[in-house]
Amino acid sequence: MKIAIIMGSEGDLPVVKPAADILKELGIEYEVRIMSAHRTPDRAAEFSKNARKKGYGVIIAAAGKAAHLAGALAANTTLPVIGIPIKSTALDGLDALLSTVQMPSGIPVATVAIDGAQNAALLAAQILAVREPELAVKLDERREKAAESIVAKDNEVKALF
Amino acid sequence: MKIAIIMGSEGDLPVVKPAADILKELGIEYEVRIMSAHRTPDRAAEFSKNARKKGYGVIIAAAGKAAHLAGALAANTTLPVIGIPIKSTALDGLDALLSTVQMPSGIPVATVAIDGAQNAALLAAQILAVREPELAVKLDERREKAAESIVAKDNEVKALF
Amino acid sequence: MKIAIIMGSEGDLPVVKPAADILKELGIEYEVRIMSAHRTPDRAAEFSKNARKKGYGVIIAAAGKAAHLAGALAANTTLPVIGIPIKSTALDGLDALLSTVQMPSGIPVATVAIDGAQNAALLAAQILAVREPELAVKLDERREKAAESIVAKDNEVKALF
Amino acid sequence: MKIAIIMGSEGDLPVVKPAADILKELGIEYEVRIMSAHRTPDRAAEFSKNARKKGYGVIIAAAGKAAHLAGALAANTTLPVIGIPIKSTALDGLDALLSTVQMPSGIPVATVAIDGAQNAALLAAQILAVREPELAVKLDERREKAAESIVAKDNEVKALF
Amino acid sequence: MKIAIIMGSEGDLPVVKPAADILKELGIEYEVRIMSAHRTPDRAAEFSKNARKKGYGVIIAAAGKAAHLAGALAANTTLPVIGIPIKSTALDGLDALLSTVQMPSGIPVATVAIDGAQNAALLAAQILAVREPELAVKLDERREKAAESIVAKDNEVKALF
Amino acid sequence: MKIAIIMGSEGDLPVVKPAADILKELGIEYEVRIMSAHRTPDRAAEFSKNARKKGYGVIIAAAGKAAHLAGALAANTTLPVIGIPIKSTALDGLDALLSTVQMPSGIPVATVAIDGAQNAALLAAQILAVREPELAVKLDERREKAAESIVAKDNEVKALF
Amino acid sequence: MKIAIIMGSEGDLPVVKPAADILKELGIEYEVRIMSAHRTPDRAAEFSKNARKKGYGVIIAAAGKAAHLAGALAANTTLPVIGIPIKSTALDGLDALLSTVQMPSGIPVATVAIDGAQNAALLAAQILAVREPELAVKLDERREKAAESIVAKDNEVKALF
Amino acid sequence: MKIAIIMGSEGDLPVVKPAADILKELGIEYEVRIMSAHRTPDRAAEFSKNARKKGYGVIIAAAGKAAHLAGALAANTTLPVIGIPIKSTALDGLDALLSTVQMPSGIPVATVAIDGAQNAALLAAQILAVREPELAVKLDERREKAAESIVAKDNEVKALF
Repeated sequence: MKIAIIMGSEGDLPVVKPAADILKELGIEYEVRIMSAHRTPDRAAEFSKNARKKGYGVIIAAAGKAAHLAGALAANTTLPVIGIPIKSTALDGLDALLSTVQMPSGIPVATVAIDGAQNAALLAAQILAVREPELAVKLDERREKAAESIVAKDNEVKALF
Repeated sequence: MKIAIIMGSEGDLPVVKPAADILKELGIEYEVRIMSAHRTPDRAAEFSKNARKKGYGVIIAAAGKAAHLAGALAANTTLPVIGIPIKSTALDGLDALLSTVQMPSGIPVATVAIDGAQNAALLAAQILAVREPELAVKLDERREKAAESIVAKDNEVKALF
Repeated sequence: MKIAIIMGSEGDLPVVKPAADILKELGIEYEVRIMSAHRTPDRAAEFSKNARKKGYGVIIAAAGKAAHLAGALAANTTLPVIGIPIKSTALDGLDALLSTVQMPSGIPVATVAIDGAQNAALLAAQILAVREPELAVKLDERREKAAESIVAKDNEVKALF
Repeated sequence: MKIAIIMGSEGDLPVVKPAADILKELGIEYEVRIMSAHRTPDRAAEFSKNARKKGYGVIIAAAGKAAHLAGALAANTTLPVIGIPIKSTALDGLDALLSTVQMPSGIPVATVAIDGAQNAALLAAQILAVREPELAVKLDERREKAAESIVAKDNEVKALF
Repeated sequence: MKIAIIMGSEGDLPVVKPAADILKELGIEYEVRIMSAHRTPDRAAEFSKNARKKGYGVIIAAAGKAAHLAGALAANTTLPVIGIPIKSTALDGLDALLSTVQMPSGIPVATVAIDGAQNAALLAAQILAVREPELAVKLDERREKAAESIVAKDNEVKALF
Repeated sequence: MKIAIIMGSEGDLPVVKPAADILKELGIEYEVRIMSAHRTPDRAAEFSKNARKKGYGVIIAAAGKAAHLAGALAANTTLPVIGIPIKSTALDGLDALLSTVQMPSGIPVATVAIDGAQNAALLAAQILAVREPELAVKLDERREKAAESIVAKDNEVKALF
Repeated sequence: MKIAIIMGSEGDLPVVKPAADILKELGIEYEVRIMSAHRTPDRAAEFSKNARKKGYGVIIAAAGKAAHLAGALAANTTLPVIGIPIKSTALDGLDALLSTVQMPSGIPVATVAIDGAQNAALLAAQILAVREPELAVKLDERREKAAESIVAKDNEVKALF
Repeated sequence: MKIAIIMGSEGDLPVVKPAADILKELGIEYEVRIMSAHRTPDRAAEFSKNARKKGYGVIIAAAGKAAHLAGALAANTTLPVIGIPIKSTALDGLDALLSTVQMPSGIPVATVAIDGAQNAALLAAQILAVREPELAVKLDERREKAAESIVAKDNEVKALF
């Protein structure tokens, strides 16, 4: 099963890139795409409708401002859709966060933090791991390494003071 | 030319009703509909794509929470789309306001106040009046009456103190 | 695979109940529990650490105010954890939303709308459906029924005006 | 019919300029003006009162902070008035957004996104297109080009990963 | 010198009434009026332009939502204008507060708390007291009484526990 | 009568300076001081208690964060106290605005915009003008000049497009 | 050592009462008082200056709106001062929270949740426990009981579903 | 008794450093550590559970975004825990502030201002001073020096104008 990472415009690539990096690191197949809920609505709807049968397991959608992308994709599939609210030029990301998370009953979007692309990828992997136990192992190992790195830094900083 | 008033769910009717009342008062043909950007996305898109050729001049869309309805309709037509953010159970309407107004470049939504159905109808009428001068006259008269009513109340209150 | 619905205090039951109802309707095994990130931290951590091997596929966590419950559970498992921010007595749910969604890199929480228990359950089901195709079918059917109900209401309201 | 683009102070020109560019591109006659709801209130009121008979079809007003300009113009005409809230030095544009959009019943302002000058111009064009079908054609073509450009970028980015 | 208390609509009277009560208590002449920055803009401007020569010393203006009334009056006089932001149906008064207080350079509005009519009246009195020493004495006495009342309540509550 | 401009710390001087410039321009006597509601509470209280009899007519107080300075001074005098909320490192000035404007009944603070030192000075002058008619004339002239400058810029910009 | 619970006005008693109840339960001596940073500033300052030598170990201060009380007390003592922001009629407690917590460097206020009187009392007890080990034991026992009560409720709810 | 300063990640060191500097200046023993509520939850819990018996008197915890660190530590000890909300890349620190301060009943966190490390250290010292009178003396002297420094700057600035 592969993962689609979809962003609303090309300018979102720097925010979204860390999601691709993590999926690569975890050996999960993925695709990065640009689709707009507002500028290419049919294309986005079409993609979403066919995503399950084309082998996608999870869709990650990143957008700013009145961030409808994740919701628009979620409206057309029962695959899990993960929304990344992008911090834009005004309101510090609050607009994108509320537009992504406050979905009406019936159409959930799994929302992560503002600009939280890494967590979107990890969440997608955790979802796939529900059917791929070896992925769960990889994710557990990744957590352990992160913990070890913090312990190492803790020791460094402890020595500094 | 007629006006479509579209709401995201039946529960929005009390908020939307004053828009219908004003259009009726002004003698403008209108239709009230329920469509959901998330639960009936194709139907909403279809409606919007055909709206101009079916004789609609303006679309009014009312929705709460992650209020994508106005934006989803606007994505499929170049008719003016007016968005009414609806105050829902949490966040006092801020979520719907930001989801409606913060549209990306290319796809405008003419946003009015939270729960501002009357103004949505008046704005729709003002838009139609750009091509129907007699409607402009009606709107001006309505304004005058409103002003007179305030003057009358001013006199009452002035006398009270 | 079963789903755990965990709330921070007994007072959250009315908010959380609709999640249980939906899982029941979908024929998904679930458990409702009370655990507190702050008042029973060890118990919560213990539960989360063992959740995967005890057969849980997804954890749903609901909490208000400085809503740490979802994050605290997510810190101890790589199962997908879904967070429901609960609207409490002050700040209209914004505190719980930000405390739930703004997780640091490494530990995602799939956040749904404030008081969005139904969507939490649906999202959990969508996640399980990644490995259980027949559940995906059920979810698609549920969506269709919801759409039909909206179409029916649309026809009613259209006739009213 | 022409369009007036009015800003509250000369410093707003960089924000407002893209509106002029789009109107030029669409071949719509327009004028750029500086008027202040607070510093030249009579001039602003006078302009607004005479706007319809001077051949204006839509007024675009841009202002920051306690952004009263659009509302002050709208109070003196039944032409459609489009408000652009400008992000200023504090509060990230929230002050201008609320001051522009939260108009009282009777006097609508069609509000676009914070610093959303392009959408203000497109909305103005969409309003004029209600009476000028050839403008609607132009706007539809513009939309198609934007969609094609996104498809092209989608193909590029898809190939990158 | 007298004080004008102006509200945007008759519905604001219960909020504004305590201002009148305080002015009465202090023996300051005042008038209560209804004028709207949006629905009777000329009348409001006219009032404000003539206020100084008609013997007003301070203008108090109360309005909700996109509360432009105080600013619109301030734009037409150099008398001190005090703004009372009124809490309306949405956004808990934040819209009125920002619309009232965030005035551009050149046109100040002396803003008091949301629904802070008593303080508006006291501030108006403090302003008049700059030229009427006996009013300053009254205000000081009023403060002392308020302090004594708190001391009395302090003693009561102290005894309770 | 002279005016006191008081700031909470030396770092606020750049924000406060424009207030001094305007008072100088208007020929009003003033003093710039540093006092802290929290670090020198007695000094601030003492100053405020004696301000009227020392010939001050208005006190301007500027502070950031939990901006108590204006309120602390207002608690000790019935002179008009004008509060300037200062935008600090976090929360974009909202903390200082709310701390300054949301005063309890009995102790008003005349609050101006975030970092609105110019308006604080103009408001102070408008207050003094209640007893000094020639100052009112100066303020009216200043307004006229500002209006003329906007008209001139309007002509320039009009010619540009 | 005893604890002072100070509120800004008598109306705050229902919010503050739970703090007194907890201190009673823990056998800690306390006093409940009404003092206002704005209406009885000298009394408040005086109390605070003498608090340490009068045997107080911690001061708890509760206030709403521009909640300066905790800060004003903290400015006059180096005893730990705990601030309870009270939710008032507007802005859902955000004003009191920011006014209490955003203290400038040098004068800390230990802020608890909006209307968080119980936690204020517990924090005060935790502070006293730094010197009274038997109080720490009591607090630990209280925690254990709270945990047991949650476990009991967990068992109940688990059985329900 | 010593103080633990714990931060959620190494990147927080510049924010936290001033706390260490103040403790050093006051001659209070302290330790700086990195622990994460989410990435090393067991280590953080373990530390907190043993903190009292290891001789810590107060724990200071600094974290950004969904800042659970202070709460997670507080859940495992009845020592006073001071929370420093850190301003991160989005939302200007509001997320960390609400996640830190809005703790549920039973588990208080003594919250200081966003990025308020100095006040966290001073508050910790004030808490220790409850049992170490000579520390109270030091803190009083520090306050006096701060006041003197403001008086000196007041004199400078007074002379400037």
